[in-house]
Amino acid sequence: MVNPSERAGKIFASLEANENINPKPDTLVLGNGTEPHLDASFFYLTGFPYGLFEGSYVIARKDGTVKLLTSALEEEIARSNSKGIEIRIIPREEASLKLSESAGNGITSIGINSAELTVKSLEVIKSAFKSAQIVDVSEAIESTRLVKDMEEVRLIQKACDAASVAYRKVPSMLRAGTTESEVAAKLAFEMQKNGGDGVSFDSIIAFGKNSALPHYTAGQVKLKKGQFVLCDYGAKYRRYCSDITRTLVFGKASKQQKRMYEVVQHALELGTEQCTPGFSGAEVNSRVTEFIDSTEFKGRFIHSLGHSLGLSVHDGPGLSRIYTKKLEPGMVVTVEPGIYIPGFGGVRIEDDLLITKTKPKVLTTAERGLIEA
Amino acid sequence: MVNPSERAGKIFASLEANENINPKPDTLVLGNGTEPHLDASFFYLTGFPYGLFEGSYVIARKDGTVKLLTSALEEEIARSNSKGIEIRIIPREEASLKLSESAGNGITSIGINSAELTVKSLEVIKSAFKSAQIVDVSEAIESTRLVKDMEEVRLIQKACDAASVAYRKVPSMLRAGTTESEVAAKLAFEMQKNGGDGVSFDSIIAFGKNSALPHYTAGQVKLKKGQFVLCDYGAKYRRYCSDITRTLVFGKASKQQKRMYEVVQHALELGTEQCTPGFSGAEVNSRVTEFIDSTEFKGRFIHSLGHSLGLSVHDGPGLSRIYTKKLEPGMVVTVEPGIYIPGFGGVRIEDDLLITKTKPKVLTTAERGLIEA
Repeated sequence: MVNPSERAGKIFASLEANENINPKPDTLVLGNGTEPHLDASFFYLTGFPYGLFEGSYVIARKDGTVKLLTSALEEEIARSNSKGIEIRIIPREEASLKLSESAGNGITSIGINSAELTVKSLEVIKSAFKSAQIVDVSEAIESTRLVKDMEEVRLIQKACDAASVAYRKVPSMLRAGTTESEVAAKLAFEMQKNGGDGVSFDSIIAFGKNSALPHYTAGQVKLKKGQFVLCDYGAKYRRYCSDITRTLVFGKASKQQKRMYEVVQHALELGTEQCTPGFSGAEVNSRVTEFIDSTEFKGRFIHSLGHSLGLSVHDGPGLSRIYTKKLEPGMVVTVEPGIYIPGFGGVRIEDDLLITKTKPKVLTTAERGLIEA
Repeated sequence: MVNPSERAGKIFASLEANENINPKPDTLVLGNGTEPHLDASFFYLTGFPYGLFEGSYVIARKDGTVKLLTSALEEEIARSNSKGIEIRIIPREEASLKLSESAGNGITSIGINSAELTVKSLEVIKSAFKSAQIVDVSEAIESTRLVKDMEEVRLIQKACDAASVAYRKVPSMLRAGTTESEVAAKLAFEMQKNGGDGVSFDSIIAFGKNSALPHYTAGQVKLKKGQFVLCDYGAKYRRYCSDITRTLVFGKASKQQKRMYEVVQHALELGTEQCTPGFSGAEVNSRVTEFIDSTEFKGRFIHSLGHSLGLSVHDGPGLSRIYTKKLEPGMVVTVEPGIYIPGFGGVRIEDDLLITKTKPKVLTTAERGLIEA
């Protein structure tokens, strides 16, 4: 079971070390709006594996005390999954009143997570703590959550396993006339059968030229011989996410398809081997982009190489231009090079990696070679 | 295709009529954070059926112009699904600069949706419009979205159909030893097979005493003869949600189980027939609660009777204590009475209703009688 006091301690340590955060808050208040506006940091801190906890707040003091204000609906889940949290059951409309009653004395400044707190919940916090200064500590929360502890890695590995094992069934799902939606439905089923709690995002299943759209979803398009089948999907396990992409060819791959695949696979290998504490996320991203741009597919890699992964699918920066810090052991990132040719199709291959002191541990194990199904 | 200018017009009309909103903004700015922190109102306004649109903003002026700032990743989806929107492709980090450049002149006050906007996105908006007053118009947005137009009802009906048809397969999924997760996986598959784009929330599949926990999820618990099987699940279709609950008994129902079912079924009928413009949400809620409290199950109905449904599963108030206004034609609400006996189990039956001028249209059609599977 998660130790909330310890996790809060990590956030306090991170905000102490962050020179952008002033003054240094003595208290953290994390709050959820209405689903889907739930703060993943609320669940990072509490460790609750289930439940919605809409309109709930957690108050963490620098002295290590952690208090939860939640509704009767979540009481059972909270009580059976909490360690050292003081739980108070309240009606949602009394949140502001109960927050100020529960928090204790001597609060001068409150840290909030601006990236996941709604403006409305902030108003509740402000009215509860009229004399306290509100300080955005989202940078400290993000950098704390970027480095996973062993329990988090265990949960992400489970989510990766569910996705990797499910992939084995994909070739047998493909027939002429199969729709993208059918593949999405079957993959969701296979992941849940293999231990996942559900999908971590709406699967992208893209046939033919649709595979050239990185944020496509899945439609009623029917599969034809010779088309690319791009599958970008993931499982959730106890709120933690996996995110994997594989691209197959239905039937024999053309010379052009093989070449695209070869370049992307090489880009993946190059990216993977550079995911060490010796490089920054931006460096790995630019190295791989430069490689793709050195081929005939110059300019066809149109997104970042990867993002962090954890309680959210996009769990902070990873292998992108904006992450100029060195990678750290404990970070979990996606590596997902792709080549997209509008009107023709795209290839993307994506793995989830755990950064270690030496070479990364690849958490997703599905077949990486070109499958002609 | 949705007419964004028309939908923005409805929000402006609603905020003009709302006396809590002062001053009356001349401009609306809706913005998305990082998934899942996306504002459903952004999609209400634009009508984009797919895509994430992270870090994207939409600016709607009172003169009817609607502008979108989004990233290259979403360009294709935006261009092929927009009518009368001016689209501008920007890098995410330039959002603030481009917002002020794009919005035009004469902006004195900006309406925001505090319930779905992150504090961080608000900072972007504030720095783009330094001299404009920021006004929370979430009440006007909520009340506009509460009343669905014909296109919205069509999409919700599709989501309801996918869920209703899927239910037919549930009895055949149940064997001694079947796990809750297996049923969840199969239901997700059936919904997607029947036209759904995915699940609208993590299904609650609860066997035996777990059915007494309204916010349970689904675990590795194995089914035994005589247990309740509570299934609370829904499909998404083009972002619109359904939300249905059915409770079966695996094997022969006991006298107690039958009695619980009978009372809940009667409560559902009572609630459904009162869902007319003659009553407020609070009145319907209290009428049904009073009925359950008049039986031997007094105090065992521990949540509200229902909520609104639309782009979110919890799409605003519905049949609850806090919604003291009369129901209006075009609202879509869930009706979900339940009885929960800790340690024994619970029964909940939930339908989705469209409020009309006369009696409601029931959108979910799955069998409502007690099934002994």
